[in-house]
Amino acid sequence: MTSAIESAESLIRTIPDYPEPGVLFRDITPLLADAAALRAVIDSMIEPFAGQFDVVAGVEARGFLLAGAVATVANVGLVPIRKAGKLPRPAASVDYSLEYGTATIEAHDDIADGTRVLLVDDVLATGGTLEAAHTLVGLLGGVVVGTSVLMELVALGGRSLVPDVHAVFVA
Amino acid sequence: MTSAIESAESLIRTIPDYPEPGVLFRDITPLLADAAALRAVIDSMIEPFAGQFDVVAGVEARGFLLAGAVATVANVGLVPIRKAGKLPRPAASVDYSLEYGTATIEAHDDIADGTRVLLVDDVLATGGTLEAAHTLVGLLGGVVVGTSVLMELVALGGRSLVPDVHAVFVA
Repeated sequence: MTSAIESAESLIRTIPDYPEPGVLFRDITPLLADAAALRAVIDSMIEPFAGQFDVVAGVEARGFLLAGAVATVANVGLVPIRKAGKLPRPAASVDYSLEYGTATIEAHDDIADGTRVLLVDDVLATGGTLEAAHTLVGLLGGVVVGTSVLMELVALGGRSLVPDVHAVFVA
Repeated sequence: MTSAIESAESLIRTIPDYPEPGVLFRDITPLLADAAALRAVIDSMIEPFAGQFDVVAGVEARGFLLAGAVATVANVGLVPIRKAGKLPRPAASVDYSLEYGTATIEAHDDIADGTRVLLVDDVLATGGTLEAAHTLVGLLGGVVVGTSVLMELVALGGRSLVPDVHAVFVA
């Protein structure tokens, strides 16, 4: 008997040497394209935090695919966390370090102070982006109750930077 | 008595002179952040095409926010249509013209031939991106049954390029 989550995991495609030699890329698009797998993953992302959040904050761009679904199924609102320069009037922005150089994320302030926020992204890797997203939500007056990702790349150690992570799959 | 959709429309924020003087930008982030408004919009995007599509194709990046929700509520799969260079092994790509220069969109082929596809994006403006998305879905073997957008900017005439458009709001 194969569970819906095990079936979903079997749909993740591994692509060797992408984006560079020696890296094994996990491609989630076959999973997303399967209705039952998509729903099983969304339900799993919600489950540990069910009833504990008022809004979902999703990280651009692949996080948007999951965040919209999580927000709608959980019957809460949705706040996009965007890359720099995409929002007309960002209320807050956070700079953070990447392997090479820096990046910036921004958001509008469409949440009331004390709003309970579930952060959503596709992958937890080094944790830099999600750590910055935590800081950003705090600047808006929100309280992060947890972070749900579809996949955690354990060897990259991002969990040390991001509290209360739930990963549907680990690799 | 105000309907859920009228309440949702009242949450769209207009920002004058963005991204350039004379342009009135419609900011949908306050609508997305409201659970009832978000759900009303997603239901409206599905309604004209209910039961007629097997998968939702969403256009990066703001289209992803809506496409994930539409797919999950409609209980179908989700195919991301991405900007060039984001997918490890794109099965098809389409170049199209913008006001200045050109752009390219790409997708993986995670759909079977004859799959019925609902295209989803946030805004129909000149129609260039959605026309290219139609072409892209055809290259993958899919059949576009319609296009749902949150807002249509009627004066830009995009409807002439994109058949079977449903817009929740017009401006």
